Amino acid sequence: MVVSQLGTIAQVDAPLQVPVQTIPNEDDGDVKALRSVSEKIASYAANNELPSPCLILDVDIVESAYHALSDALPSAKIHYAVKANPAPEILARLARLGSSFDAASRAEIEMCFDQGVSSDRVSFGNTIKKETDIAFAYEAGIRLYAFDSEAELEKLARSAPGSKVFVRILMECEGADWPLSRKFGCEPSMAIALLVRARDLGLVPYGVSFHVGSQQIYASAYDYAISVAAGVFEKVAEQGIRLGLVNVGGGFPSRYQRDVPPSKVYGEAIRKAVDRYIVEPGFADPEIIIEPGRGMVGDAGVIQAEVVLISYKDDLDARRWVYLDIGKFSGLAETMDEAIKYNFVTAHDGGPEGPVILAGPTCDSADILYEKSYYCLPLDLAIGDKVFILTTGAYTTTYSAVGFNGFAPLASVCI
Amino acid sequence: MVVSQLGTIAQVDAPLQVPVQTIPNEDDGDVKALRSVSEKIASYAANNELPSPCLILDVDIVESAYHALSDALPSAKIHYAVKANPAPEILARLARLGSSFDAASRAEIEMCFDQGVSSDRVSFGNTIKKETDIAFAYEAGIRLYAFDSEAELEKLARSAPGSKVFVRILMECEGADWPLSRKFGCEPSMAIALLVRARDLGLVPYGVSFHVGSQQIYASAYDYAISVAAGVFEKVAEQGIRLGLVNVGGGFPSRYQRDVPPSKVYGEAIRKAVDRYIVEPGFADPEIIIEPGRGMVGDAGVIQAEVVLISYKDDLDARRWVYLDIGKFSGLAETMDEAIKYNFVTAHDGGPEGPVILAGPTCDSADILYEKSYYCLPLDLAIGDKVFILTTGAYTTTYSAVGFNGFAPLASVCI
Repeated sequence: MVVSQLGTIAQVDAPLQVPVQTIPNEDDGDVKALRSVSEKIASYAANNELPSPCLILDVDIVESAYHALSDALPSAKIHYAVKANPAPEILARLARLGSSFDAASRAEIEMCFDQGVSSDRVSFGNTIKKETDIAFAYEAGIRLYAFDSEAELEKLARSAPGSKVFVRILMECEGADWPLSRKFGCEPSMAIALLVRARDLGLVPYGVSFHVGSQQIYASAYDYAISVAAGVFEKVAEQGIRLGLVNVGGGFPSRYQRDVPPSKVYGEAIRKAVDRYIVEPGFADPEIIIEPGRGMVGDAGVIQAEVVLISYKDDLDARRWVYLDIGKFSGLAETMDEAIKYNFVTAHDGGPEGPVILAGPTCDSADILYEKSYYCLPLDLAIGDKVFILTTGAYTTTYSAVGFNGFAPLASVCI
Repeated sequence: MVVSQLGTIAQVDAPLQVPVQTIPNEDDGDVKALRSVSEKIASYAANNELPSPCLILDVDIVESAYHALSDALPSAKIHYAVKANPAPEILARLARLGSSFDAASRAEIEMCFDQGVSSDRVSFGNTIKKETDIAFAYEAGIRLYAFDSEAELEKLARSAPGSKVFVRILMECEGADWPLSRKFGCEPSMAIALLVRARDLGLVPYGVSFHVGSQQIYASAYDYAISVAAGVFEKVAEQGIRLGLVNVGGGFPSRYQRDVPPSKVYGEAIRKAVDRYIVEPGFADPEIIIEPGRGMVGDAGVIQAEVVLISYKDDLDARRWVYLDIGKFSGLAETMDEAIKYNFVTAHDGGPEGPVILAGPTCDSADILYEKSYYCLPLDLAIGDKVFILTTGAYTTTYSAVGFNGFAPLASVCI
C-alpha cells in the first residue's frame, strides 16, 4: 500500500486506522483531517517486535514523493535535504531514482558517497562551514557551494577554488509552520556585491538561493521570493555576471493537521515565477534546484510509541495528562513552542474523546509536547496502549538526544 | 587548581583567563560577573588535541561541590540527579564519597550499578515509569520510588510491593531560570489521598517531595515549599500515617551570569524550615534528601568550541552574527527560549567588544543561542578561534542530538 505524498492518503482497513476525524485547529477552526496509518506500516507494526518508541518509515512513500515532485517540476533538479532523514535506505532509493543531494556537513556528504552517489550530484548547502570541511568536500570532487557572507566566500576561494557558488538571500515569508529566522541569508543588496566579489576571488558566481520557511503552505511564497531573486540576477548582469541557477530551497509541506496543496501547485507556482521574472529570450533558461526534505520524507514515517502514564493533578482537573515514552528530547524536537502539530492514532479512535496535555517521559519539566494546543484523545486510552504518531518521517531520528535521562535515541526501521 | 562550587572561583594565570568583566544582564542591569577558566581545565585544553566541540569536566570540582553541599546540610542524604551528567567518572567519584543517586530511568540505574553503587543507595525518582522498568528496579533491590498519581501507585503496588514511596507535590515557585511546569506533582489535597491509598495498596507511604525549579536563586523558595509539605505530613498523620522523609529535590544553582548564594545559605534555609514546620518533639526527625544535579556538576564543566563564521546580513548591520560549532541541538539545549545564559571566554577578552547574535552550525533556523539576550564579544574575535563556554557541566552531553545535520554528539572528557 503506497501512500502518495502531498496527495490523497488511500484509506484501507488497517488495525489502528480511523479514516476521518474532526481535529480542532486553532487557525482554521474545526477542519476535517485524515488520520490513518497505511496498511503496510500498520501491518509491519503488528507483526514485528519493535523497541518503543520506534519510527517506521515506508521508503515506497519516499519514492512516490520523489515522483510527485519530479513530475510537478520536470525542469528542476531535486537535491534531497539529507538532514531531514539520512537513513541509508532513503539515500539509496533516492540515488537509484536519480536524485541529487544537499548536504549540511561533512558527515552527510560521506553518507551520500556511502550509497554510491557521485560528487557531481552533491551540493554543500550549509552557509556555515568549517574550512577543513570545505577542503574535504572539494578534494572529494564537490563543486557546488552555498554562502551568504564575505568570510564564507573567502574560505571557499581558498579551499574550493573555481567552484560554483550560490548566494542565499534573506527571505521573510508568511505561512510557514516552522519559524524562519534571520540566521541564513543576506540582504539582496549585499548578495549582489558578494557575487561580484566571488568572481574577483576566482569562484564562479552561479546563482541565488532562498528558503520560504519549512512546512510552507502558501505556494505563492515562491512567487514573491523568485521575484526578489530576479532582482539579483538583473543587477549582477549589469556587472557582466550571467547567473545560471535559481535554488528555491525546500519548504514543501507534510500533511500534519490539515491537508496541503499537492506538489503540482508548488511546481506550477515556481515554474511560472521563473518564467515571469528570470527567463530572458535569447538566453538559456536558468537551472532550477529544489531541496525538499520534509516534503520528501515527512509523510513516509509513523512513530509507534506507548502510553506510560495517564493522570490528573487534582480531583477537579478537566484535562488528563498523557505521558508517552517519546518526548521533545527523544525525537519530537519540532514540538518546540508547539510549532509542528502531529496527529495521533490509537486503537480507541472513534469512541468518545476528552482533552489532554501530552508530555514526554523525562524528568525535564520542559518536556511537554502539547499543552496550549487543544488536543483530544479517546477516553478509553489506557497505560500501555500503543499510539501511532503520524507524519514523523522528517527531523525526528537525528534530532533525538543521544541519552537524555538515560533514554536511548529514537529507534528507526525502513520498510 | 580546584574551583569551589557555589563559592569563589580562584583566579589564576591561565591562557584564556579574564578574571572580571562587565556582563550586561537583563534582570539586574550591569553586574560584575566572574569569567574565568580554571588553570587545570585551561591547561588541559591547551595541551591536548580535542575534538571540537568538547566538554572538559573537572571531577575535583564535583567533589568540592559534594563536600560543600554535604557540609551545608549534614543531616541530609545527597541523591545525585544522574540525569544532569551520567559520566562514569562522576558517578564513580560520588560513589566513593558516599553519595546516593537519583535515577530517571532503567539505564541510569544500570549506570549506577556499573560503578558499584548498591541498590539501597539508588532512588527511582521519575514519576513516569514503565511498569517493566519498575519491575526491573525492584528485582535489582531498589525500594524507594517517587509517584504523583494513582495510576503510578498501582504500578508500584503490583511491581514493587512493600516499597517506600514518596509523593511529589506541585510547587509553583518564583526565581528559577529553567522553567517549571505542572508536568510533575499533584495538588497537596490529592497527595494526601494518594498516600493513604499507598498504604491500602501495601506500599509504605514514606514522604513528600517537591521541586522548586532548576537554577533556583532564592533559598527562601525551600522555606515555602517545606511549609506546604508539612501540611501533608500533618494531614496524613491524622489518618495514622507517620511520614519519615522530606525530599527537597534539586534546584541548587550554578554560576552562570551572576553569583549565586553559597550552599550553606540553602542548607540553612532547608534545615530551619524542616525544624520549624515538620520536626515534632517526641518523634524522630524526618530524613531529608536533596537531589542536586546542576548544583553538583554545572560549574565543573567547560565546553571548548570553535568559531565557524562571523558575518553581517547587510552593510548597516550593527550586530555581528557569530556562528559556533555547537548549538541548541548539539549540547546547548538549555538555551531554549534563552533560558540559561552561559558565559563565554575568548583569548581576546579585555579588548573592545561589540554586540553579537550567537548561533549554532546547523541548517536549522531555530538553532540560535542568543538573539534577544544582549551578548557582547571581542571585536578581534576571528573565524577559527577557540571559545570556552563556562558552567556547562550539567544537561549538555546527554541532551545533545545523536546526529543532527550529521554532526556528532558533544564529545566529553573528565579530568
